[in-house]
Amino acid sequence: MSDYQYPINDILFSLFSIAKVEKLNSYLEEPIEKDFIEALLHEAAKLAEQVIAPTNSVGDAQGAQLVENDVVESEALKKAFQIYSGSGWIGLSASPQYGGQGLPSYISTAVNEGIQSANLSFSLCPLLSQGAIEAIEKHASNEIKDYYLPNLLSGKWSGTMNLTEANSGSDLSSIQCKATPDGDYYRIKGQKIFITWGDHQMSENIIHLVLARTPNSLKGMKGISLFLVPKFLVSKDGTLTRNDLKPISIEHKLGIHASPTCVMSFGENQGTVGYLIGKENTGIRSMFTMMNNARQSVGLQGLSISERAYQKALAYAKERQQGVNSIGERANIIEHPDVLRMLMTMKSQIDAMRSFIHVAARENDLSQLAIGEEQTLSKARTALYTPIIKGWITEQAQEVTSLAIQIHGGAGYIEETGVAQFARDARILPIYEGTNGIQAIDLISRKLHFDKGEAMRKLLSDIEHEADNWAIRNSQNQIANFKKSLSQAKQSTRYCLEAMDHSAVLATGVAHSYMMLIGYMVGGWLQLRALNELTVDSNILPDEVRKSWVDSINFYCDHILIRTNTHFESICNGQPTLNQLSSSSFER
Amino acid sequence: MSDYQYPINDILFSLFSIAKVEKLNSYLEEPIEKDFIEALLHEAAKLAEQVIAPTNSVGDAQGAQLVENDVVESEALKKAFQIYSGSGWIGLSASPQYGGQGLPSYISTAVNEGIQSANLSFSLCPLLSQGAIEAIEKHASNEIKDYYLPNLLSGKWSGTMNLTEANSGSDLSSIQCKATPDGDYYRIKGQKIFITWGDHQMSENIIHLVLARTPNSLKGMKGISLFLVPKFLVSKDGTLTRNDLKPISIEHKLGIHASPTCVMSFGENQGTVGYLIGKENTGIRSMFTMMNNARQSVGLQGLSISERAYQKALAYAKERQQGVNSIGERANIIEHPDVLRMLMTMKSQIDAMRSFIHVAARENDLSQLAIGEEQTLSKARTALYTPIIKGWITEQAQEVTSLAIQIHGGAGYIEETGVAQFARDARILPIYEGTNGIQAIDLISRKLHFDKGEAMRKLLSDIEHEADNWAIRNSQNQIANFKKSLSQAKQSTRYCLEAMDHSAVLATGVAHSYMMLIGYMVGGWLQLRALNELTVDSNILPDEVRKSWVDSINFYCDHILIRTNTHFESICNGQPTLNQLSSSSFER
Repeated sequence: MSDYQYPINDILFSLFSIAKVEKLNSYLEEPIEKDFIEALLHEAAKLAEQVIAPTNSVGDAQGAQLVENDVVESEALKKAFQIYSGSGWIGLSASPQYGGQGLPSYISTAVNEGIQSANLSFSLCPLLSQGAIEAIEKHASNEIKDYYLPNLLSGKWSGTMNLTEANSGSDLSSIQCKATPDGDYYRIKGQKIFITWGDHQMSENIIHLVLARTPNSLKGMKGISLFLVPKFLVSKDGTLTRNDLKPISIEHKLGIHASPTCVMSFGENQGTVGYLIGKENTGIRSMFTMMNNARQSVGLQGLSISERAYQKALAYAKERQQGVNSIGERANIIEHPDVLRMLMTMKSQIDAMRSFIHVAARENDLSQLAIGEEQTLSKARTALYTPIIKGWITEQAQEVTSLAIQIHGGAGYIEETGVAQFARDARILPIYEGTNGIQAIDLISRKLHFDKGEAMRKLLSDIEHEADNWAIRNSQNQIANFKKSLSQAKQSTRYCLEAMDHSAVLATGVAHSYMMLIGYMVGGWLQLRALNELTVDSNILPDEVRKSWVDSINFYCDHILIRTNTHFESICNGQPTLNQLSSSSFER
Repeated sequence: MSDYQYPINDILFSLFSIAKVEKLNSYLEEPIEKDFIEALLHEAAKLAEQVIAPTNSVGDAQGAQLVENDVVESEALKKAFQIYSGSGWIGLSASPQYGGQGLPSYISTAVNEGIQSANLSFSLCPLLSQGAIEAIEKHASNEIKDYYLPNLLSGKWSGTMNLTEANSGSDLSSIQCKATPDGDYYRIKGQKIFITWGDHQMSENIIHLVLARTPNSLKGMKGISLFLVPKFLVSKDGTLTRNDLKPISIEHKLGIHASPTCVMSFGENQGTVGYLIGKENTGIRSMFTMMNNARQSVGLQGLSISERAYQKALAYAKERQQGVNSIGERANIIEHPDVLRMLMTMKSQIDAMRSFIHVAARENDLSQLAIGEEQTLSKARTALYTPIIKGWITEQAQEVTSLAIQIHGGAGYIEETGVAQFARDARILPIYEGTNGIQAIDLISRKLHFDKGEAMRKLLSDIEHEADNWAIRNSQNQIANFKKSLSQAKQSTRYCLEAMDHSAVLATGVAHSYMMLIGYMVGGWLQLRALNELTVDSNILPDEVRKSWVDSINFYCDHILIRTNTHFESICNGQPTLNQLSSSSFER
């Protein structure tokens, strides 16, 4: 039996009762029935549990190797990729015109949770294909779309993103990679680093999307263009010729070992052939349109790795015996209150994270399906959710995966136990796709300051309105904690807006606390929404599952949500001490 | 130049101005001059920076290997151990009667910080020797002392602790290892796991201290005895014969790779020769007398690894360029407020941790030197400090080492950068020498409940009295935050005592929050004590160093200390939700 179980019941409850995805049906030509989704998720569960999950430890132990000009991944992954891509999972949300299934993103979100829990390293390869597919669908010419999309959707080919250079990480404006026009195409020259799945043998061809500068382009962000650069050029008769690019090293990383992170070299010889996507100098804008999805995907990774780590810790706590229980019998460690505290810290945060991710996925779908003002509002809310999903959830993932080690005691520190891998893998999440510092700054500058707080105020007032109508009576303490956190969110929003007006740079010192405060508050909102649903319809879930949800909700509100108190004080009282800091504050 | 600098000025300020170690001189026959300590610490600095620190990465990369019946460590470590032990550092606090220097433990604490920062894995070997020396000094016969101590003190031999078995980790009462009398000695039979430096080639002989049961001994803790078990038996003519024991495997761990963690097998053939230490059935008591030191040592390890990680992150933040500063120039990332926030979160906690460790070391010395009621009080306070030092500081070390990775961005995730090692190494600290869950339970049961809160109330009232006399005027907000946390400490102490009276088992659910609350409050107390010292005598430190301390103190009080708010709410409002939890709370 697999040591991972796709939590299908929790996912269905979260999608339908908390995120209320069925309401999207009124925007669709053909409504999507719950039965269909349930059947689809059962298939995804089988794939994740039986095909992909068994590759996780072996992929971690074997890693990937650079052999001459090629990266060779663990053999187990190649087989899993064939089964996965052969069943059409890559194109779940892509356009049917090119072979996709055109389903809303909440469904691919639910599916991808399973794939990522099963093997995070593995999941990054199709995830990057999905990103490339989206970029090509939105910005490339029809010729490129017709040619590349069917192969990417079938998994015959895969995609990558080539953004980072040695001196351009968080700040892409300093990108130096060059693209010189040469007839119908461009010649690319330069080096990219941290390219996830930059080379491998799981697909026949690899389609790199590369940011580079054309000659005489403007300095900074406005002079960067996006290029499609295939590993193999395909002639009309179908023969493949290697393009002038290669991986020149792979990183030795803390985690996600099975996923090769490459330094890619372009144009060491005649110059790499690349095709412009969109117009020159619009590369950053094209990348930004994918940003919400990409960043929310990383938040989902935080949930997925937390879920897997939690399952392992729970299983261990149920079987490991140590000490005695309250009636003097040798105890399974799950009987000790401190272990229960750790397990519920994990579970209650996982429940809150998943609800938030599903609510955001639904919002993302709405922003595509709605029109007019409804669409405008929905787009603003999606943009607002994105940095919180990415930042807050990936921070939670650090705590949850670390607790999973702690519950294992000494065994948790031994690699063969397998739980340390989750913490190692999770540690990349607050870094890539924009560090959490960047997310926090994005939240208080672009998402809060640019519209003078309008989108955030609307969210907070919608939440308040909903809370006023909850039919919950037995959880007064939890509701009080929530209302306090909502009030803190309001006050700190005002505070941050004022601080931004005063100095947009200095104000970023409290951005991280603000992001965390809003994240915890949103978690509380959705946990209590779940409680309300369980109260209004006491038959949604079987009794024992219902009890677990109630325990999780109450625990979240009493022990997790209250962390807003600290973030709130840090925001409101601490700006003076923050503003005193400078590089000279560290003299000894 | 070494990438580690022993922070000698901070250490001296902390020892003399915060922990006020000079007050111990009145208890000594010969007072210890500050000049002597300063000179000694300068030597320790050279050793740590130049001899040991360079072995850290190579030791991590090479690890240790089991070759037939022997563990072979990295060659670099062997050389470092020769230099280290040859200079007499192992016996710094040991009795001069056997070759030690008989110095107070605050001095060895200050020295060991440097050794541990330089290479945590390496430091564990002499640390375990120091533990063995202490156990032998206190409990063994004169014959054993005369024979073994000089060799352990010189580093010619080294020591280990053999406690854990596969089914006896947190709970030692179920130990099964057997010891059968056989003339002057015993024959030991059984298996021990997680034996740090259980075998190696750095010393000529290894002296194992082993917990085992004699025939017909009582069940549980009261039937366990302590044995001295040498790797090599030494005959009268000095020839060495291998005793019947061997390492049978070494663990593949998340971190501290250079430190071999062994499964030890005793008595596979004729039975291992072991010598009883103390009397039969007093083994656990003998181990417990070393517990305060051993656990405080792990707290010190938390400080040490945090310090090393902080230094690396600070250096990187000063040199890595990314983005622009407030006047539009390309910025070193240390200029970004969010990076300053992370660096000061690290520094201010390190300052607080170090002060606490030095205050506790001084208390430990006092508990040895004082007599009568003063000694009784001092022993109680040392016992009270111990679980907080171990638990709170090792939790902080997780945050600090993780932030060090975060500041490095993508580079932090690459092993060659070297910063990930600190987080991997640090992850053992909340686990070994009693998990932090065990520390928290020790705090609220043995240290709080057994004396009905007397030692804790005395500490809190001493702190309050001191705070009433501070001559600080410019930090009203910080003082207000501190007084709030002190009041929370008082209230939650009362709450925990009541909860323990009601149900000693259920109350342990809030033990971890209580430990963290007290830890943060103590950190605030000592940070403000430092501020008071800097205010009373404005010439203690050079101006620029003084400013850094003030920034650290103010930041700690405004952004770190306030975490007590969350722990306080969790303790006072959350017991009902905690008490609802059971193994059935996780149904899906």
